[in-house]
Amino acid sequence: MSRIAYVNGRYLPHRHATVHVEDRGFQFADAAYEVIAVKDGDLIDEGLHLRRLARSLGELRITRPMSDAAFGVVMREVIRRNGVDEGIIYVQVSRGAAPRDFAFPRGVRPSVVMTSRRHRGPDPRHARDGVAVITIRDIRWARPDIKSVALLPNALGKQQAKEAGAYEAWQVDPEGRVTEGTSSNAWIITAADEVITRQADHSILNGVTRVGLIDLLAQAGLRLVERPFTVAEAKAAREAFLTSTTNFVLPVVRIDEAPVGEGKPGPVVARLRETYLSYTAEQGIGR
Amino acid sequence: MSRIAYVNGRYLPHRHATVHVEDRGFQFADAAYEVIAVKDGDLIDEGLHLRRLARSLGELRITRPMSDAAFGVVMREVIRRNGVDEGIIYVQVSRGAAPRDFAFPRGVRPSVVMTSRRHRGPDPRHARDGVAVITIRDIRWARPDIKSVALLPNALGKQQAKEAGAYEAWQVDPEGRVTEGTSSNAWIITAADEVITRQADHSILNGVTRVGLIDLLAQAGLRLVERPFTVAEAKAAREAFLTSTTNFVLPVVRIDEAPVGEGKPGPVVARLRETYLSYTAEQGIGR
Repeated sequence: MSRIAYVNGRYLPHRHATVHVEDRGFQFADAAYEVIAVKDGDLIDEGLHLRRLARSLGELRITRPMSDAAFGVVMREVIRRNGVDEGIIYVQVSRGAAPRDFAFPRGVRPSVVMTSRRHRGPDPRHARDGVAVITIRDIRWARPDIKSVALLPNALGKQQAKEAGAYEAWQVDPEGRVTEGTSSNAWIITAADEVITRQADHSILNGVTRVGLIDLLAQAGLRLVERPFTVAEAKAAREAFLTSTTNFVLPVVRIDEAPVGEGKPGPVVARLRETYLSYTAEQGIGR
Repeated sequence: MSRIAYVNGRYLPHRHATVHVEDRGFQFADAAYEVIAVKDGDLIDEGLHLRRLARSLGELRITRPMSDAAFGVVMREVIRRNGVDEGIIYVQVSRGAAPRDFAFPRGVRPSVVMTSRRHRGPDPRHARDGVAVITIRDIRWARPDIKSVALLPNALGKQQAKEAGAYEAWQVDPEGRVTEGTSSNAWIITAADEVITRQADHSILNGVTRVGLIDLLAQAGLRLVERPFTVAEAKAAREAFLTSTTNFVLPVVRIDEAPVGEGKPGPVVARLRETYLSYTAEQGIGR
């Protein structure tokens, strides 16, 4: 089965899926996006993702190109045409193509691109053994709460992590507090069984997995505290983990070469991971 | 004459000039660019622009796609095919197209896009009457010295200026000091005839017009001071101006509705503008 991409109303062979060189997504990073997990052929947390996409587009004043219902239809068609049972769908909406000028063009139609691919979630060894993170300075713009494609600092940070033999880089604000990973949210668990993650203000992207997990914490008997935590606190934490659409819940066992707790996945994160996976499995079945 | 764009080795009709939807310039703002002025059919400050492009690519660890000599040949061919005698050429180099993943892909070839268009410089009324600027918070990432396409905050700022009836927005750091415009450098002239502009560290893009003008200041009998200036200083300045590749030197006569000096272009900026235009005219003839 050859891959198909959706581009502005057309389903195209992947290698012919292109946008104009004057698309503002290419020249100005003037676009928002979402990555949605697919499980058992259906979309996980579709409503939350579409709500967030609408928020990003609203903040950027990009016209919403279609209704949520239409998004649902097209996304399912892209998944179907690509034969994706378990994987992800990527959706990007840019302000559109127009002669290059910084200010918003008038009367332009937003560009919509969707691609989908199979993906079995993170390497099972990551969940079993945990992953390492490094800490880096957060050099992003002041509005990472908007899920825009202005991801150059994120790409540089992820590359830095990879070269350091780590899985992710946790970004740190000028006060020494962790904001989030380059493509995931950051969490720690204290000795008092408090689950700490930064509050969703303008300094972080409010992950859909983050939101979903927060709803599940009470049922797991855990207390949530939304506040910034320092790198030192993280290194002294009992357990640590990260969340994202493609990783779900993943234990973090090393921060800048310092072991977290005993340097191996702890019981609380394991329980949260199971709870979250059950939640996604129920969604797949529920639809 | 129909417009032609250069894309990865091919000269294409403008409307068919496209890049792949998985080009990292489109998905991650993972690209650098230059805008070069064309005058009398030749490139102004070609060497400075190509040196800066090489620096941006080096900082981003994007492979240089071709030699400066080859860039020169292709740029001239794009100008020629578009019949541009006076205008601009736009050059963008992205890390290339690869399956979406934050870290750098291996073995990918950078994408190169060039477009050119006629442009007679800024509206002559702007030079005659001066322009207004507003001041906004600088919300960009920490490396605007790299000329990347992560320009979303710049686009939002320019739009804000436009809606306020202004020509440009001067961005202001947390200490209340102007960094630069969204697509231009910011300058003031004090009562003591000092020309002040922010030093070219990581907080600003070191404009080619900025560099060229600095070299011409001594010959105009003016003393340069490279340091940050506050919004209050700017409003109290005798004269103010901005520089960019497409605007050359443009008088700023209003800042946030407050008149600069007498609220009309002053003699020093007029002299600098003339000096700079002579310099570009000589280059056109010289080649």
